[in-house]
Amino acid sequence: MVDAQTVAGAGAPSTVPTSAVTSRRREATRQRLLDAAAQVFAEVGLDAASVEAICERAGFTRGAFYSNFESKDELFLELAGAVARERVESVRMRVSQLERDGAFDVAHVDALQVIRQVLDLSADDRLGVLLMSEIRIHALRSPALAAAYLAQDEEMRRSVAQIIDDIGRANVLRFRLPAYDAARLMLTVWEGSAVRAAMAGLDYEEMCRRTNEELARVAQLIIETPGR
Amino acid sequence: MVDAQTVAGAGAPSTVPTSAVTSRRREATRQRLLDAAAQVFAEVGLDAASVEAICERAGFTRGAFYSNFESKDELFLELAGAVARERVESVRMRVSQLERDGAFDVAHVDALQVIRQVLDLSADDRLGVLLMSEIRIHALRSPALAAAYLAQDEEMRRSVAQIIDDIGRANVLRFRLPAYDAARLMLTVWEGSAVRAAMAGLDYEEMCRRTNEELARVAQLIIETPGR
Repeated sequence: MVDAQTVAGAGAPSTVPTSAVTSRRREATRQRLLDAAAQVFAEVGLDAASVEAICERAGFTRGAFYSNFESKDELFLELAGAVARERVESVRMRVSQLERDGAFDVAHVDALQVIRQVLDLSADDRLGVLLMSEIRIHALRSPALAAAYLAQDEEMRRSVAQIIDDIGRANVLRFRLPAYDAARLMLTVWEGSAVRAAMAGLDYEEMCRRTNEELARVAQLIIETPGR
Repeated sequence: MVDAQTVAGAGAPSTVPTSAVTSRRREATRQRLLDAAAQVFAEVGLDAASVEAICERAGFTRGAFYSNFESKDELFLELAGAVARERVESVRMRVSQLERDGAFDVAHVDALQVIRQVLDLSADDRLGVLLMSEIRIHALRSPALAAAYLAQDEEMRRSVAQIIDDIGRANVLRFRLPAYDAARLMLTVWEGSAVRAAMAGLDYEEMCRRTNEELARVAQLIIETPGR
């Protein structure tokens, strides 16, 4: 077993300030714990995924764990946040690419087609669904975790609203809902659809297809149909 | 402790067929077990709500429990279904009342006002949120429970779609989405909003207000705006 303190302190090249090395090492330790937690969680679920099991998988001591995370809930909330931010980031990158490609500049652009392109990479996966569902139920019973969950949810909502604003500013699509409300709706449908798909035991491809179909349908509702 | 077999068999008035009495008694036993389960669950959660604790609360033996339910999951799924059906039923009754009152007959009816009246009674409560959230996470790990959950979800969706069709047939509102798809959207927003409200620790009144506001906003999107 490796102790995080040791890892963080050891073998710092003399040319680099120790503090920078320490924070880099600490970040690596956090990441290894998060990766291990994702594996253990996917195998046995949140309740059975003990701090011991996570540390053993990561090859760290409990000391390493608690020097990086206050609790198991905090680790899983960060893990869920990482999954969620990854999803939103993939949408944002997709939008930027479409803008560079001039997909929004065509006057007679097919709105639904644009939506499908934007959402193409953004389906949820089973780990994300399980994480958010388990953290949700824990948050419903823990005010502290609930506050953290809602803060993360709000961060996601603002990110998606920003993306919707960016698309709107491309001047091709007009919306029947403020971006902030549209973001809430898209995120809610996103999660609901991903959960049902995961429950139905659909494979990743089919899960993506169904979720994107549902999101595209909602986006069509939100978009002001041209010429009406 | 009372055993279900005894209850079901005992003291049948000779004027009534024993089978009818038996089924009535059995129904009463099921209901007592469901009521006890709701209390125990609300107090300690799904995992800690043992069959023993539920039987003790209901004043029945384990024999009574297993003669009525295959498992704890089956009982909680039925409990969640009862909560959900109650919600939909309250909406349906509200719609019928509004039809009797002629609320849909006014040519220049305020669509949003009608929506608010329809949704007025239909907010989720904390028990329902907790139940659905816990059953959801269990279903994500149990194919059998998932199948039952999805079947119940489909039943709810069809009920809501029927209500939307009924309102549509009142010939005042036209929709931009098939009733079946609109029902999915309303149910998804309903759950998402209720969960966030419960997490934020809002009281029942505020929970209803927020959920109805979100549902009204979505309904406005679904409704074909007159004169456009």
